[in-house]
Amino acid sequence: MAVTVTSPADFHVHLRQGSFTELIAPHVKKGGFDLAYVMPNLKPPITTTEQALKYKADLERIEPNVEYLMTLYLSPGLTPEEIRKASAAGIVGVKSYPRGVTTNSDGGIESYEAYYPVFEAMQQGDMVLNLHGEVPSDANNNIHVLNAEVQFLPHLLKLHAAFPRLRIVLEHATTRAAIEAVKSCGPTVACTITAHHLALIVDDWAGQSWNFCKPVAKYPDDREALRDIIKEGHSRFFLGSDSAPHPPHFKSTSTPAHPCAAGIYTSPILMPLVADLLDSFGALDKLSGFVSEFGRAFYKRPAKPGKTIRLRKIDGGKFVDEKYVQGDHELVPFWTGRRLNWEIVQSQ
Amino acid sequence: MAVTVTSPADFHVHLRQGSFTELIAPHVKKGGFDLAYVMPNLKPPITTTEQALKYKADLERIEPNVEYLMTLYLSPGLTPEEIRKASAAGIVGVKSYPRGVTTNSDGGIESYEAYYPVFEAMQQGDMVLNLHGEVPSDANNNIHVLNAEVQFLPHLLKLHAAFPRLRIVLEHATTRAAIEAVKSCGPTVACTITAHHLALIVDDWAGQSWNFCKPVAKYPDDREALRDIIKEGHSRFFLGSDSAPHPPHFKSTSTPAHPCAAGIYTSPILMPLVADLLDSFGALDKLSGFVSEFGRAFYKRPAKPGKTIRLRKIDGGKFVDEKYVQGDHELVPFWTGRRLNWEIVQSQ
Repeated sequence: MAVTVTSPADFHVHLRQGSFTELIAPHVKKGGFDLAYVMPNLKPPITTTEQALKYKADLERIEPNVEYLMTLYLSPGLTPEEIRKASAAGIVGVKSYPRGVTTNSDGGIESYEAYYPVFEAMQQGDMVLNLHGEVPSDANNNIHVLNAEVQFLPHLLKLHAAFPRLRIVLEHATTRAAIEAVKSCGPTVACTITAHHLALIVDDWAGQSWNFCKPVAKYPDDREALRDIIKEGHSRFFLGSDSAPHPPHFKSTSTPAHPCAAGIYTSPILMPLVADLLDSFGALDKLSGFVSEFGRAFYKRPAKPGKTIRLRKIDGGKFVDEKYVQGDHELVPFWTGRRLNWEIVQSQ
Repeated sequence: MAVTVTSPADFHVHLRQGSFTELIAPHVKKGGFDLAYVMPNLKPPITTTEQALKYKADLERIEPNVEYLMTLYLSPGLTPEEIRKASAAGIVGVKSYPRGVTTNSDGGIESYEAYYPVFEAMQQGDMVLNLHGEVPSDANNNIHVLNAEVQFLPHLLKLHAAFPRLRIVLEHATTRAAIEAVKSCGPTVACTITAHHLALIVDDWAGQSWNFCKPVAKYPDDREALRDIIKEGHSRFFLGSDSAPHPPHFKSTSTPAHPCAAGIYTSPILMPLVADLLDSFGALDKLSGFVSEFGRAFYKRPAKPGKTIRLRKIDGGKFVDEKYVQGDHELVPFWTGRRLNWEIVQSQ
């Protein structure tokens, strides 16, 4: 069995910075993807057009065969003027992180009203607002990592009502409630789904830090909702891998004082992994829509003609690479030690 | 500020086996406790009176200043005849583990009906049934580590209805629903609560394997329910620490193939920890009931006169020990790196 997909696009990926990026960025292409929608949560975060363009140039130098769509980090310093400048320079989106909920989110936002002039400018400049859709945990109000996304959804609906023409993406949705909320919105609201959230549930990260990410994988019924919306072929739900590399010792070891890093690294195996997963729940016929057409349509980035990738199913599967090493850097991919039933046979 | 407690009793503790026990067993006394209700999930599990008595003798040789109440592991080989023998020999309880849900539970039970003759014999012999109250995860039925306890509760109610005179303890309750279920039962049903479940919620074990145990810590509202029932001074809810030592490398490190071990080690700091926790949520006046009187009354093990322990509050607190070492064995206690605001000043 084989499938051909036109120019896969990953609409949510972390490529990090410095020499670490030299190991990471080429894995986008290795994983079968021609386009990377690049997250801005570096240290310091990407908050200006200049920083974003410099970061883009760095990425293009390292791996020129990928189209990088750049984003800014929503924070108090971001002005409507900077948005107009960013839009004119081809920066595509602005990413919002609630304060403190994931890797490098200490500068994240606390309330949205203060940013309405920024969103107004984004709407005018046709930029996209990318939402990490979780509220911070708050034990006094029974808010925790399992309901943090559901508690965020009223913010999504309010933003959509206030800026109906603003394109908004709810990133890495993990719950049935989030899927329903996005479905209930108009055509300007879309949703990314990661590969790992199609595979994992809460049991998988209980005591297993390699499967720990934010948002955390939820209950089996939530995973079912993610799978179902893909099976349905809904065009406002598409892949954003949230591939998030961390040095292995930050993933494997916790001390009583330091938890493990949140993030799952899927870039280097992404197309085979997604094909495997969609095949496993009967949605292989939706693969092309999910990894390319739907996201490209929403982001107005049509595939270049002739750019295709071919995958085939392997008898007995093939072990995922154990690790990737370059200089002092090392990375362990998701599903290492397991077999993938699909592989890339041709990419052009 | 100081408090005096009469002869604290820990009604759920894991003391392991072999040379490891020589490090662990003395920590019961170090933690301020005179009585240990000993779990039978060794390798192989304790399934006969002879094994239990031999294990008890081992424990008494290592640390003679603690009263050990022994239990058998509920499994298909356990007969009513063995129950009568165990009861006559002073074995106090039988512990039921659903199959596969925690450390060394591979031989656990799958359904209770087959054990009704055993329970009948236990009821006649006045033995106690100790339930690990979780059903196995089952993604097809949306059962996972967060709702496994709630899904178990109908089994508890059914057992209580079938054997109203059988003393049953729902071990290490973690949910509001479990507290309500036990409250709704008659005087023969009680419930243990651990120290760590009074401290932790799900956020605390997300990516932090040192806080990973089974049952997993639940939502803030559930923790509130555990604290509230203690504040209420309900006599059928008492301490069972479920102190569960593992070698540090099993706690700190996961590989993609191997998750961390489930279990939290509280024995060596138990009385100061419980005093600190109860003090933190305004239940210090219930300390004596929670750690001694209520459990001793349910188990019919009154404290010996004159056995008391005195604790005092420390200005600024005192760091928890970093680790305990003996021979090749090493153990890291819960809350290492943090300060406890209470300490034992006198134990007699």
